[in-house]
Amino acid sequence: MDIRKCAAEAIGTFWLTFAGCGSAVIAAAFPQVGIGLLGVALAFGLTVVTMAYAIGHISGCHLNPAVTCGLAAGGRFPAHDIPAYVIAQVVGGLVAAAVLYTIASGAPAFSVEKGFAANGYGAHSPGQYALTACLLTEVVLTMMFVFVIMGATHGKAPVGFAPLAIGLCLTLVHLVGIPVTNLSVNPARSTGPAVFVGGWALTQLWLFWVAPIFGGVLGGILYRWLSEEPSVQVTGISPPAPAE
Amino acid sequence: MDIRKCAAEAIGTFWLTFAGCGSAVIAAAFPQVGIGLLGVALAFGLTVVTMAYAIGHISGCHLNPAVTCGLAAGGRFPAHDIPAYVIAQVVGGLVAAAVLYTIASGAPAFSVEKGFAANGYGAHSPGQYALTACLLTEVVLTMMFVFVIMGATHGKAPVGFAPLAIGLCLTLVHLVGIPVTNLSVNPARSTGPAVFVGGWALTQLWLFWVAPIFGGVLGGILYRWLSEEPSVQVTGISPPAPAE
Amino acid sequence: MDIRKCAAEAIGTFWLTFAGCGSAVIAAAFPQVGIGLLGVALAFGLTVVTMAYAIGHISGCHLNPAVTCGLAAGGRFPAHDIPAYVIAQVVGGLVAAAVLYTIASGAPAFSVEKGFAANGYGAHSPGQYALTACLLTEVVLTMMFVFVIMGATHGKAPVGFAPLAIGLCLTLVHLVGIPVTNLSVNPARSTGPAVFVGGWALTQLWLFWVAPIFGGVLGGILYRWLSEEPSVQVTGISPPAPAE
Amino acid sequence: MDIRKCAAEAIGTFWLTFAGCGSAVIAAAFPQVGIGLLGVALAFGLTVVTMAYAIGHISGCHLNPAVTCGLAAGGRFPAHDIPAYVIAQVVGGLVAAAVLYTIASGAPAFSVEKGFAANGYGAHSPGQYALTACLLTEVVLTMMFVFVIMGATHGKAPVGFAPLAIGLCLTLVHLVGIPVTNLSVNPARSTGPAVFVGGWALTQLWLFWVAPIFGGVLGGILYRWLSEEPSVQVTGISPPAPAE
Repeated sequence: MDIRKCAAEAIGTFWLTFAGCGSAVIAAAFPQVGIGLLGVALAFGLTVVTMAYAIGHISGCHLNPAVTCGLAAGGRFPAHDIPAYVIAQVVGGLVAAAVLYTIASGAPAFSVEKGFAANGYGAHSPGQYALTACLLTEVVLTMMFVFVIMGATHGKAPVGFAPLAIGLCLTLVHLVGIPVTNLSVNPARSTGPAVFVGGWALTQLWLFWVAPIFGGVLGGILYRWLSEEPSVQVTGISPPAPAE
Repeated sequence: MDIRKCAAEAIGTFWLTFAGCGSAVIAAAFPQVGIGLLGVALAFGLTVVTMAYAIGHISGCHLNPAVTCGLAAGGRFPAHDIPAYVIAQVVGGLVAAAVLYTIASGAPAFSVEKGFAANGYGAHSPGQYALTACLLTEVVLTMMFVFVIMGATHGKAPVGFAPLAIGLCLTLVHLVGIPVTNLSVNPARSTGPAVFVGGWALTQLWLFWVAPIFGGVLGGILYRWLSEEPSVQVTGISPPAPAE
Repeated sequence: MDIRKCAAEAIGTFWLTFAGCGSAVIAAAFPQVGIGLLGVALAFGLTVVTMAYAIGHISGCHLNPAVTCGLAAGGRFPAHDIPAYVIAQVVGGLVAAAVLYTIASGAPAFSVEKGFAANGYGAHSPGQYALTACLLTEVVLTMMFVFVIMGATHGKAPVGFAPLAIGLCLTLVHLVGIPVTNLSVNPARSTGPAVFVGGWALTQLWLFWVAPIFGGVLGGILYRWLSEEPSVQVTGISPPAPAE
Repeated sequence: MDIRKCAAEAIGTFWLTFAGCGSAVIAAAFPQVGIGLLGVALAFGLTVVTMAYAIGHISGCHLNPAVTCGLAAGGRFPAHDIPAYVIAQVVGGLVAAAVLYTIASGAPAFSVEKGFAANGYGAHSPGQYALTACLLTEVVLTMMFVFVIMGATHGKAPVGFAPLAIGLCLTLVHLVGIPVTNLSVNPARSTGPAVFVGGWALTQLWLFWVAPIFGGVLGGILYRWLSEEPSVQVTGISPPAPAE
């Protein structure tokens, strides 16, 4: 495992968590001119668009344990490299939450009790969605997210557009799911804020590891079945932004 | 007819209906930070952007009976394959509505009486638009939507950009037409929610089959007349995302 | 002059005026979930993105007398073809306004007195901007719009991206200028609604012919000076979406 | 140093400052349908998207002293050309502020005391963020912005997409940071409005030179370490939009 790949995953997941959650914590509900959930959804998607063009040719730009596991299930990533990627991603998410906490604490009205962009279900769902609805949402949206990643990076898809398709897919799943769980589809993004919120956020964190990874694996398997192309690589990274 | 093509159309139309209508039902009117009609328009468009890159090289990514009929009228799709595509699309739309219903029911305030993103005219038009205005809107917007699809997938258009052009065109027609009919331009997307709303939604469903298909056929014919290129394929799929 | 080129310009300008102004009239101020000026700006831009991919290889997709004149001043379009293009564009804008009027009249609350997306200055500026501010806004924004068109369709710019750059530039100028004049930068788009509003809108229409065309010519000249490349075509259409 | 390159940088930075700050001053808080911070973030990003396609092949389209310094630190720009670029950028920003002031003064309610899009910290931060939070925000966001520029223009990144990645990254950093400092990440953009606001804006201007340039240099060094590719050019411009 190349150390540069792990560094790229850590930096990229830092960016996803810092800028995605940062837009929610700092700008979503700013009085009168706040960016709202639409702005937050756009921000999360653009973290992936920008990083996929910047580091896609280095690490494949997963930035997400559910994506790494889903691509492994889909035959695009070697299973023995999963732990290194996941650890790098979680480290990136934790550093992001720490930096965001430092910045957000500089505002007089800040309080971590407002949620700090942590994910939750039931009483901690933004729209009070029940556990089963939250579970289903995370599974379905992560499944389709990984399905789109598999398809957009397929050898027959147009070259160079995968970062747009994948990033805008992350925007799309946020447009649907923020009211349900604050939307995770990404255990590393969920872990960072949960550590700073503590209490209920840590208690509920299991769902945002289990459901996205389960959904991601389903998505990888579904696309692999659908495409059944001999050109699909069974091992090795298939980066969103091919180098040549 | 390849079963993989039908499966791709079903999955893609599931995504269009689930995520498009889901953004409307779950997130559009969320208190204070809701995504509004702009967010819903973006969501519908991004379902097509993401799927066109993911499955365009498999099925052409129509996801819409009006598109399938329009492309057939435009000489881009064999007429004898229309039924298989349309059935797959309707199945995808129905499954999407069922999954969305399950999730939405998990919120305490949910009520299918609010419309569940079904399309309507007259008293059931969001802005109370009369039947003729609704009919004209659906015909014109579907006509132009298929016109853009025909043009963006033409052999002389830049390679690889068709999914963006087509998806963003779906966003555009929603930016104009949601207040009129909640916007269909797609009978499969209309059928799913209508089954769950029942009553008036089923009674008014005919319009959202007749008008989009009529408009789509007009669009296909109009572009075919305009381009009159020998390079236009008279039969066979011209996928939005060419493989090479 | 090829009749197909004129037909493409008329259809494209119909789309720009119908969907752009339509989003403003129908959806901008819809209660609680309206798309606002941001949605209108996006809609205008997407009319150009979609049409440039669809008909760029036919007519160059100007859709705007100020663009046609600006490209001629920049050495990209033959001056003797200006009249045919401008007439086609104005016809497209008029038909668009007629269709939009028919649809908008189908809503109980519609009144053409609300402005019907016509452009205005002074007392008819949305933000009550004075004539000189309105004039300066239209000149500067059209100048920069044509400057971007010249640059994005230059032979050294990346192939295939011009429709995105140009359409998103139209979105950008609307993000700045709607409160000033409702934003024109396009005499054909201004003429359609003005005919239906009548009165003040026709009296003020001169500004939305003079300022955009003057600005467009400045933009063409500025870019031509800046690039001074031998590869610049002095005559002939340089379409936004090159065919090969 | 080619005079055309400096002219391109001045025109481009004019556009970034005029249209970016213009959207904030004119349209952000327009009653009921204002574009909000989301619209402003989009506008800033689109100034770069449009200019990068238009002049990327002329000057590399930096439009920002922090980018110029960051690219020099990253080995992509000759250090002896920094002064010419920075002077051109500051001139562009000053002219933009002057033109915007002329237009904005044409509205009855205009007052430069509302801030005129100047950047500030502490009592002049939109959300009252403390100095250290503002400093950290500008450093981190500029660092990541330059990191993305370095990556998206790398020889292994997909050709032609860099303007989208870079422009949308500028949108992203605005989605996060406007409530903190009104967001600079660009000393030239900060200087223009500060001159017209005077007083506190000039007193606080130092931060918006120091923090972005420091962050930009960090970003250039970080990416250079991460990529360590022999293909990286140590001197010379690596334009976002390669000519061939």
